[in-house]
Amino acid sequence: MNLYFDFNATTPLRAVAREAWLRANEAHWHNPSSLYQKAAEAKQVLELAREELGDVLGCEPERIVFTGSATESNNALFAQLSEKLSKDKRVLSSSIEHPSVREPLQRWFAKRVTLVRTTKSGEMDLEDLATQLARNNVALVTAMAANNECGLLHPWRAFAERCHEAGVMFHTDAAQWIGKEPGDEMGASDFITGCAHKFGGPKGVGFLVLRDEREVLSHLRGGPQEQGRRAGTENLPGVVAMVAALREAIAERETAACRQAALRDEFEKTMRAQFPELRIIGEGAERLWNTSMFVLPQGDNRKWLARLSQRGVAVSTGSACSAGHDGSSVVLEALGATPEEMRRVIRVSGGWGSGEGEWTALAEAFGEVGKDLGVGG
Amino acid sequence: MNLYFDFNATTPLRAVAREAWLRANEAHWHNPSSLYQKAAEAKQVLELAREELGDVLGCEPERIVFTGSATESNNALFAQLSEKLSKDKRVLSSSIEHPSVREPLQRWFAKRVTLVRTTKSGEMDLEDLATQLARNNVALVTAMAANNECGLLHPWRAFAERCHEAGVMFHTDAAQWIGKEPGDEMGASDFITGCAHKFGGPKGVGFLVLRDEREVLSHLRGGPQEQGRRAGTENLPGVVAMVAALREAIAERETAACRQAALRDEFEKTMRAQFPELRIIGEGAERLWNTSMFVLPQGDNRKWLARLSQRGVAVSTGSACSAGHDGSSVVLEALGATPEEMRRVIRVSGGWGSGEGEWTALAEAFGEVGKDLGVGG
Repeated sequence: MNLYFDFNATTPLRAVAREAWLRANEAHWHNPSSLYQKAAEAKQVLELAREELGDVLGCEPERIVFTGSATESNNALFAQLSEKLSKDKRVLSSSIEHPSVREPLQRWFAKRVTLVRTTKSGEMDLEDLATQLARNNVALVTAMAANNECGLLHPWRAFAERCHEAGVMFHTDAAQWIGKEPGDEMGASDFITGCAHKFGGPKGVGFLVLRDEREVLSHLRGGPQEQGRRAGTENLPGVVAMVAALREAIAERETAACRQAALRDEFEKTMRAQFPELRIIGEGAERLWNTSMFVLPQGDNRKWLARLSQRGVAVSTGSACSAGHDGSSVVLEALGATPEEMRRVIRVSGGWGSGEGEWTALAEAFGEVGKDLGVGG
Repeated sequence: MNLYFDFNATTPLRAVAREAWLRANEAHWHNPSSLYQKAAEAKQVLELAREELGDVLGCEPERIVFTGSATESNNALFAQLSEKLSKDKRVLSSSIEHPSVREPLQRWFAKRVTLVRTTKSGEMDLEDLATQLARNNVALVTAMAANNECGLLHPWRAFAERCHEAGVMFHTDAAQWIGKEPGDEMGASDFITGCAHKFGGPKGVGFLVLRDEREVLSHLRGGPQEQGRRAGTENLPGVVAMVAALREAIAERETAACRQAALRDEFEKTMRAQFPELRIIGEGAERLWNTSMFVLPQGDNRKWLARLSQRGVAVSTGSACSAGHDGSSVVLEALGATPEEMRRVIRVSGGWGSGEGEWTALAEAFGEVGKDLGVGG
């Protein structure tokens, strides 16, 4: 058995992305910044990819800077803004952001970061956001679009609106949103972070959307690539593969959203039948259609993971970016879970085309492991 | 006709690199930081790649951090050292470094950078280096291993020795050296920069070698990947493709060094026969076996490039990282060339397997364009 339910950690490469990558390496591997015909063609292919991504995100292509990862995009943005903004300006964020937002924020803004309260369901509290926007000398709000752990969808449009009313910039890390949820209004955010390997594109490619084409970025200095905003030879094969993957993910999105959510809900029903005390995080709230995060009634989550792994089942204790540490969940912590509860949390995240049989087998595997561990009904 | 002689800008993907990338995306696309069996396998493949690269460079694998590019490696290193070193410490460098060294050095050390004199042939002057090492409060010397423009090989081993005698750290940007020249003693440098697309690996992958496994790097913060030294999901397919390409480049290296240098020399002889006033940069000095840079007796180099491009010939005016600007050459400037001479410079850089027929056709193309432009004998 081979059941992969860790799509929020990373995804297999889509065939269309593989083909696009191979084609680019065949026909357009030349340095887009060079001055001969083939280089000019490569440059053109790169700009077409930028235009297509701009269409998908609802933003001008000139706003897009291709990067190596969502982590790079987040780090680059905060480093840049910390240089640009006066030293009395503050940043609002929440306690449930991804480490690649939390850590560079801490590095570059430290005590100038205020955490907006989260609601009981785990999202940034709009009322507290309004209060903080009025009170503090705020220059930027950063809030993720969809949570990587429990899949909670955040009202980023509302956040963006409040920010703009207050004359404050809004950044959203949309790594988990893009390709799964409707993306064509994302351009309303001033800054957007995304990366390819979360929707079937290759690893090592991401992007950062800036406010406009004049906005400076200077975390990687050297050559004049990306209009001087990110030095280094352009990863054209990676970029076109990312865009090809996104095109397909979006084409599959609506069907997946409907079908997968139903399968995920059915899975949760079966899980609750097996483990009546199961606590599902974000149940009832708007969530990504592929994600289920829950606290098992008993047993260390690493024990569960190991036994599931023996059965060929891949799930996680939370984010791969914090797993390997103490396995704790930022979201659960924000929701007031005890350390003991955090050691019992599991995240399951399916794909655009996960089959009914796979979801059923997944629930069964949990049932079997539960029996092994003496847990459940 | 399709003559590619711009290998110093970028290289086509080697078949072995393509296969390694495809295989990794097939079998090991899982997140190496996750906790199930397939993730553990991916992690193991990643560490094997690190070991192989360590062997090639003559350094402990623990010293290697995989990055997204040589530009990233350089920027990350200088940012880190500027945080770590006390504010009175100085850095020695030279005027012929790549922009991805010069610009972050300027950003992070500004007036604390001293440029060591270059010799007439264009390399860092060992005598002046010794003087500067004795005089200044120097913490770091950074000098490229092989020049990207004229191909000049720098005595980086001697630089490293002088530095270590003086208790000073030594960094070499070896992006053009690795895969072309013997690399197994590179580990003698404290810090080494390299990237895949200069030797037939994929774009968007590079590495930075640090002094030891305890050395901190924190330019990208977030998840705990790369032992906490570079956050972001590991680009395993890119890394294994890079190592596969390097393995092959090194296997071909000795034969290429012998055969290509002879072909290059023959090309230069023909060029001089066609253009008696041709000035070859670094002639007589130790150069990369694939590179020839010269000042044509007449005609703007962009005119030459355009006409060569029409004939399917890809060469450059210098580095792609500075082309697109004013086309000037850092090396030529350092060697005291006039702005007028700089507008007549062309760089030709072949591959490991460029054929005799290709080199001959290249010289002929120059001859034909010369006739068009009314230049030459």
